[in-house]
Amino acid sequence: MQTKYIALSAALVSAASVVGCKESEGPLGGCFDSHDYTDDRFGQDTWEKAESEMQRRALSLALDKGKVKPDAVDLLFAGDLLNQCVGSAYGLLEFGIPYFGLYGACSTAAEGILLASMLLSGGQARCAAAVTSSHYCAAERQYRFPIEYGGQRPPTAQWTVTGSGAFLLMPADAAPPDSVRVVAGMVGRVVEKGICDANNMGAAMAPAAIDTLTRYFAASGHYAADFDLILTGDLGREGSAILCELMAAQGTPLDDRHADCGTMIYRLDAQDVHAGGSGCGCSAVVLAAHILPRLQRGELRDVLFIGTGAMMSPDALKQGQPIPGVAHLVHLRGKTRGDEA
Amino acid sequence: MQTKYIALSAALVSAASVVGCKESEGPLGGCFDSHDYTDDRFGQDTWEKAESEMQRRALSLALDKGKVKPDAVDLLFAGDLLNQCVGSAYGLLEFGIPYFGLYGACSTAAEGILLASMLLSGGQARCAAAVTSSHYCAAERQYRFPIEYGGQRPPTAQWTVTGSGAFLLMPADAAPPDSVRVVAGMVGRVVEKGICDANNMGAAMAPAAIDTLTRYFAASGHYAADFDLILTGDLGREGSAILCELMAAQGTPLDDRHADCGTMIYRLDAQDVHAGGSGCGCSAVVLAAHILPRLQRGELRDVLFIGTGAMMSPDALKQGQPIPGVAHLVHLRGKTRGDEA
Repeated sequence: MQTKYIALSAALVSAASVVGCKESEGPLGGCFDSHDYTDDRFGQDTWEKAESEMQRRALSLALDKGKVKPDAVDLLFAGDLLNQCVGSAYGLLEFGIPYFGLYGACSTAAEGILLASMLLSGGQARCAAAVTSSHYCAAERQYRFPIEYGGQRPPTAQWTVTGSGAFLLMPADAAPPDSVRVVAGMVGRVVEKGICDANNMGAAMAPAAIDTLTRYFAASGHYAADFDLILTGDLGREGSAILCELMAAQGTPLDDRHADCGTMIYRLDAQDVHAGGSGCGCSAVVLAAHILPRLQRGELRDVLFIGTGAMMSPDALKQGQPIPGVAHLVHLRGKTRGDEA
Repeated sequence: MQTKYIALSAALVSAASVVGCKESEGPLGGCFDSHDYTDDRFGQDTWEKAESEMQRRALSLALDKGKVKPDAVDLLFAGDLLNQCVGSAYGLLEFGIPYFGLYGACSTAAEGILLASMLLSGGQARCAAAVTSSHYCAAERQYRFPIEYGGQRPPTAQWTVTGSGAFLLMPADAAPPDSVRVVAGMVGRVVEKGICDANNMGAAMAPAAIDTLTRYFAASGHYAADFDLILTGDLGREGSAILCELMAAQGTPLDDRHADCGTMIYRLDAQDVHAGGSGCGCSAVVLAAHILPRLQRGELRDVLFIGTGAMMSPDALKQGQPIPGVAHLVHLRGKTRGDEA
């Protein structure tokens, strides 16, 4: 088993979130930086262009907040759910920042933060950004059915978040003292347990989250009790139940430490989202707008953030292939009173 | 302009190439490690599964050649042209290596080698692999038309290489002394110059190659004459002409140092490939099977390898969007007699 512990010394200097209507109406609605309250189009004429526009706004906001100009950013890690990751390619074009395109499905926020943190820790860059996004209407028509079709959604289905999150990172010793630190990480492996249902992403991703968490606990010597929060990206109600049940069954229970961005971003009982939110944007905006501020305020100190991705290809499903999952982990640490600067 | 010079200290420990029929019949046919001489199916029942099988074989071969077991590989960088990069996800599943999914279109080989080299140089890993692939039949039906349709191809069209390349890398000081070194790199930026023709990838990618090369020359202080070879990934005849003409026009001519994997892999006058080869597999297999051995034999010493990618989305094209390109560069150095160990 691959259990290499990756010690990191990076920090999140700023973060920004851009969301659509449904997310604005959810329980975290007041936390996000930028909203489209009208039609999720962000002034564009297609859903795909709207997704690019969200990324453009998110990175602009993160740069503004961090008081960093684009030409001071050495590296940009970005990806999204659209085929060929064009949400990122078009959305981030104007910044002219050296660009590493990622494909990690809904784990992209964590993948970008982890890769950026590794390179910053190794001295290969002095400032890096990670950006990702998803759009409900663009994702539905690419992965399932156009929304106009009005397909029936089963209880395990999740609602792709319309949103984009951007993160700006620096080496820990170059970041402002109140920045949230990235102190360790664990790279995900591709895990596939036979799930073939395009409407059950939670079940496809949970085994990958279990694999990564298990390897991280083994490598770090930590247990769930050592963390204030173990936050998965978008397992939803279904995947979260699987995660908690199987972690307990193997003797490493998550107890009450687990939460999932997909079950936090919407009112599950009232917003008709079935098993919860999903998509690259889900974990990105919840982390940027809700979790990082709590870490900065000292309400949380040690958080494991596990981005979960289902690499679901409609073509592969038609060929009878199951859905592979991947989950990348970063250990985030906020400052608490008494910490050294 | 982003001109950060990235000094690297990594080495290519082994490389392997797997190709289909047409590539086997090309001028480099005898160089590749593994072939399908019959039907490009590699024993599978779909083109997409055949692509995964090529990746599986390529990484297996590279591990064998490098005498490295999968669990000694800390990180795997992989991606391909299939939507959701499933060629990599399925093909590399069984190895269980921590996995960073990339999307860099045809620049993926260079992107993976560059990212791996940066992390190895920074001490964040001790062994890493980079794998990519493309398959003519899978790519044609996803990006243009199924081959059964028999669409007419214009002269600027390129032929997607059916092939997979895998590379194993270590820090320079841990690698065998005759390994090819990765001594520097330049991360590509997304560049888009208005090309909307899905049958002219060369023109879409050439501006990205120019951007990366120009920034690299500015950052390193080097010129074309300092290199034995400036090797682009898959610009083909069309894109290569654009690159050479525009580089000369801006006062940094490539002289006779430029070559392109896309024009080397096929007999352009006899194999009906129009402007040449393309696809992630193109640069990967030419580098693995032809260029690295020449570097190891001392026939070449300093080579710039520039992976060129067109992030071409059929959906975005239908929405009137041009094709963005990206090009990642690594400076490879072979050992020559008299070099210190």
